[in-house]
Amino acid sequence: MGEAGLELVARARSLTGLPVVTEVLTAEEIPLVAEVADCLQVGSRNMQNFRLLVAAGESGLPVLLKRGFSATYDEWLASAAYIEQTGNRQVILCERGIRTFETRTRNTLDLSAVPVMRELTDLPIIVDPSHAAGTAAWVPALASAALAVGADGLMIEAHPRPRESWCDPDQALSLEELQPIAGWVLAAAPIRGLAG
Amino acid sequence: MGEAGLELVARARSLTGLPVVTEVLTAEEIPLVAEVADCLQVGSRNMQNFRLLVAAGESGLPVLLKRGFSATYDEWLASAAYIEQTGNRQVILCERGIRTFETRTRNTLDLSAVPVMRELTDLPIIVDPSHAAGTAAWVPALASAALAVGADGLMIEAHPRPRESWCDPDQALSLEELQPIAGWVLAAAPIRGLAG
Amino acid sequence: MGEAGLELVARARSLTGLPVVTEVLTAEEIPLVAEVADCLQVGSRNMQNFRLLVAAGESGLPVLLKRGFSATYDEWLASAAYIEQTGNRQVILCERGIRTFETRTRNTLDLSAVPVMRELTDLPIIVDPSHAAGTAAWVPALASAALAVGADGLMIEAHPRPRESWCDPDQALSLEELQPIAGWVLAAAPIRGLAG
Amino acid sequence: MGEAGLELVARARSLTGLPVVTEVLTAEEIPLVAEVADCLQVGSRNMQNFRLLVAAGESGLPVLLKRGFSATYDEWLASAAYIEQTGNRQVILCERGIRTFETRTRNTLDLSAVPVMRELTDLPIIVDPSHAAGTAAWVPALASAALAVGADGLMIEAHPRPRESWCDPDQALSLEELQPIAGWVLAAAPIRGLAG
Repeated sequence: MGEAGLELVARARSLTGLPVVTEVLTAEEIPLVAEVADCLQVGSRNMQNFRLLVAAGESGLPVLLKRGFSATYDEWLASAAYIEQTGNRQVILCERGIRTFETRTRNTLDLSAVPVMRELTDLPIIVDPSHAAGTAAWVPALASAALAVGADGLMIEAHPRPRESWCDPDQALSLEELQPIAGWVLAAAPIRGLAG
Repeated sequence: MGEAGLELVARARSLTGLPVVTEVLTAEEIPLVAEVADCLQVGSRNMQNFRLLVAAGESGLPVLLKRGFSATYDEWLASAAYIEQTGNRQVILCERGIRTFETRTRNTLDLSAVPVMRELTDLPIIVDPSHAAGTAAWVPALASAALAVGADGLMIEAHPRPRESWCDPDQALSLEELQPIAGWVLAAAPIRGLAG
Repeated sequence: MGEAGLELVARARSLTGLPVVTEVLTAEEIPLVAEVADCLQVGSRNMQNFRLLVAAGESGLPVLLKRGFSATYDEWLASAAYIEQTGNRQVILCERGIRTFETRTRNTLDLSAVPVMRELTDLPIIVDPSHAAGTAAWVPALASAALAVGADGLMIEAHPRPRESWCDPDQALSLEELQPIAGWVLAAAPIRGLAG
Repeated sequence: MGEAGLELVARARSLTGLPVVTEVLTAEEIPLVAEVADCLQVGSRNMQNFRLLVAAGESGLPVLLKRGFSATYDEWLASAAYIEQTGNRQVILCERGIRTFETRTRNTLDLSAVPVMRELTDLPIIVDPSHAAGTAAWVPALASAALAVGADGLMIEAHPRPRESWCDPDQALSLEELQPIAGWVLAAAPIRGLAG
């Protein structure tokens, strides 16, 4: 992430007061990103980039670990263990769809990951239906299913004007489409024993 | 299905007053099965058995068409069209999991099938989480997700004493485990515009 | 297969003096097909059509069993066992590509099937590169690889005028393209201990 | 790679006079590795580690780019383009098996990659049957098939005493098993227009 990107993140955080999750691509950029982000994301393509996992763990920040798009549950857990062995136990797992033979969806969202991983780990598990679906129209239904299956949270792509989004405009929700989903999450939170 | 099986189905229907869905494996057995069943099921392995599809359609009974475990949405629709071209429009689609690289679950339940197929067809879509999960403990969460994603119904394996089930005992729910799921379906039905 | 099809097969066999392999789709048509064919083929979509497997076995003719496009080696062997339990041991296995995420080829030809299945069974194993590739230009290289990996034979789609083929014209070789491949098979046969 | 590893590589090269290919895992280690290696390998898990691709390209050394175990041909080409855009055109592609539903083999060797990629790129393509098979007994047959399908070379795991190999002992060939395969490569080289 370039200097301009870091400034943007810092400004967004300061203007909104919201915590920020930012993806890191290399171990080297982590110290700089850690100054402006509240949580580091390791993306699907880097799930087995072990040097990155260790460096993210050593930052001391929470790490959001996306499942590799062809990773088994066991490989995903093994990657989480790389972060945890640095002493950093704040790992959040994120299911975001796996590669299958079906081509109408960008990836196949594997919601079974939530109950199965619950048996294998105490780490929180969230779901990203946007990257799995690849099409905004299918995101609300999948978000609802993710909460129903027991996910601890959602990661959803949204944009004030989705058509103008630089990245993945087809899967971005408008803020109007995002609002009811945010309501579902708030309603689900106390049931999970989380702050409302 | 042998004669003993047919008698069993007939007796179960008469004792309970409930409609019965029964799988058919060959075109030849359809006339006999049609006398005791209210709906014919075409199983996952037969989704592209075109002679069976046509014969099931010609029975005039509703046909429950399970998705092949490696079939795309488009292949599934093509199989439904084989039934519909007999003039029988009472086809119910059933998502039951697809084959992927993940081995902890028996199959990977593809809940995206519900919103995507909704755009492609008017046929009702139900979900079978039992065959997908292969493990009873994961079925309730997946059943809940299936309703949340918009499924028109559920197909769930249950048994008064699951351990003694002749077929797939690992994935069968007890009647006590089934009961709350039945309640969810009843609660969801009016929202879908179905009779409660 | 209709009556006209059966006559065509009978005429082709009589004119050429060559043995004929013909696909069967239902148990009912087997007695008629068995009168004109020397070997019955069970296609990929029917690999788990157990009634068809048994009926093909009971014909007493050799049965060419294509691997299901999503079948594991073990499932393929289980299907062969259905035929063999009729007392008919003349089963020929045919690898024809499996479904994967790659879309440039019609299927992914799995040549590892040959050495792995060799360890698991004594049945002969042939390879069909045409259905796997889906594109004629790639067939000769894959045919050569199939022989090199130890296949006992090849099944290749060819047509005197490929563009006019009714079925799968994109993957059919011309007779000129077929000729050298036939030569490779003849050259390989004595090495395998088969008649030259 | 630690300092001890680098010294070992340097010694092996000097003792044998053979050129050395070594895997690099991070951009940072490339300058050190480049002092002792003749070719840098980017492994399957790093095929989409774009920073590593660029840094490997900028080394000026040949780069052996293994296909990601779930990468399409087009994604593989896109990764090669990352290296080539540094001005370094010495990229060697290596097919090493893809992840499928079949579990008896470690991965499914996709030999169709050779003829298909030939149409899409001028880069040389080699094949690694060892990682695909995962079992030494199947490697010679797959190596032979790889040459027959047109591969420009092979990458094969071997060890003087395979049982004592630190890494993947199940798939390592002994030197006696390796020798005939080396002979096949030498025999094939002039046919491909390479130095014998």
